[in-house]
Amino acid sequence: MAAKADRARETRTAILDAAERLFAEHGVGEVSNRQVSEAAGQGNHFAVGYHFGTKTDLVREIVRRHVAALEQRRAGMLARIGGSTELRAWVSCLVRPATDHLASMGSPTWEARFMAQCNTDPILRQIVIDENVAAPSMRHNLEGMFGLLPGLPGETRKERGDMSRLLCVHVLAERERALHEGAATPRSTWEATAVGLTDAIVGIWLAPVTRAG
Amino acid sequence: MAAKADRARETRTAILDAAERLFAEHGVGEVSNRQVSEAAGQGNHFAVGYHFGTKTDLVREIVRRHVAALEQRRAGMLARIGGSTELRAWVSCLVRPATDHLASMGSPTWEARFMAQCNTDPILRQIVIDENVAAPSMRHNLEGMFGLLPGLPGETRKERGDMSRLLCVHVLAERERALHEGAATPRSTWEATAVGLTDAIVGIWLAPVTRAG
Repeated sequence: MAAKADRARETRTAILDAAERLFAEHGVGEVSNRQVSEAAGQGNHFAVGYHFGTKTDLVREIVRRHVAALEQRRAGMLARIGGSTELRAWVSCLVRPATDHLASMGSPTWEARFMAQCNTDPILRQIVIDENVAAPSMRHNLEGMFGLLPGLPGETRKERGDMSRLLCVHVLAERERALHEGAATPRSTWEATAVGLTDAIVGIWLAPVTRAG
Repeated sequence: MAAKADRARETRTAILDAAERLFAEHGVGEVSNRQVSEAAGQGNHFAVGYHFGTKTDLVREIVRRHVAALEQRRAGMLARIGGSTELRAWVSCLVRPATDHLASMGSPTWEARFMAQCNTDPILRQIVIDENVAAPSMRHNLEGMFGLLPGLPGETRKERGDMSRLLCVHVLAERERALHEGAATPRSTWEATAVGLTDAIVGIWLAPVTRAG
């Protein structure tokens, strides 16, 4: 029975890998579960349904795998900054786990583009947000950050949260794609990318709030 | 002959409209010229090739139509701010032409999502950038803005230019999609969206530059 369990685990991993790549390249809505099963080398075209359920369930599993990879890195970084009163330190803990993770895997990776694709669908985007915010380190990170921005109106907090998410997701996806294609990138490393992105996100959060008409 | 020219112009407009919508929904790479011809109501499946050439030529025409719509608005705004020494005034001229244009058309629009899709392809992204920067008002706008940021290193200017573009493109696309789907939006109007986005982009440009390790 151990061999059978191993085989099932391998099949699940192959499906998650193939789905992440196909969704990253073509968009989640453009790829069928059957195409994922085939790309994962499964003779059975219903392998996705059997192992994961619906396409939304499959997406959730890919996101969970990603969040789990970030969780440990973020917890370590938060422990190191302790109760810092520097906004930049907290924003760095939002950005660095993803860039360090991407750096650790070498190119090509697909997860940054996969995340960008999920962001274009309202249901999948909510899954990404919910799964990320459910991670204890992420809640701690956001609380620490918002503690340093006490005067910000609630709607501005929501708006700038959306903007930080969009900027982070698309800067990482654009860089991942450029690396994959051998194109030029504004920064030479993921670490330097994190530095520039962190500066920009700090700038967004500290920008004066202009009252709309 | 006038009737024939009118008919050709109508056909071209129908093709541009259909292509913009299909590319916005599915991604440029996922839609064939044949599908565009069919969606434009053309019995001839080669209508795109006949009227525009390649798919890249078709994309360029959609982008040009968009840039032309922004050019007049931006020229008027720049004339009104004159030689302003306020960075926010110049950034507002980058953002407002697009939001005012989207507001003027009512929902659904497709162009914000079309632009976001183009940004995921290196060749199409360069077409969008080149066509935008070729517009005289855009060059004037960028020169005025960079004139107020004299100390910024060249690579930071490039990086923050990329980030401003990504933020603008994806905030507008996310809002356009939410309006189309009847979902909640952080801001109630395009005008208020421009105010929040302008604040954020000013924040990005004015953020202190941290030296990477």
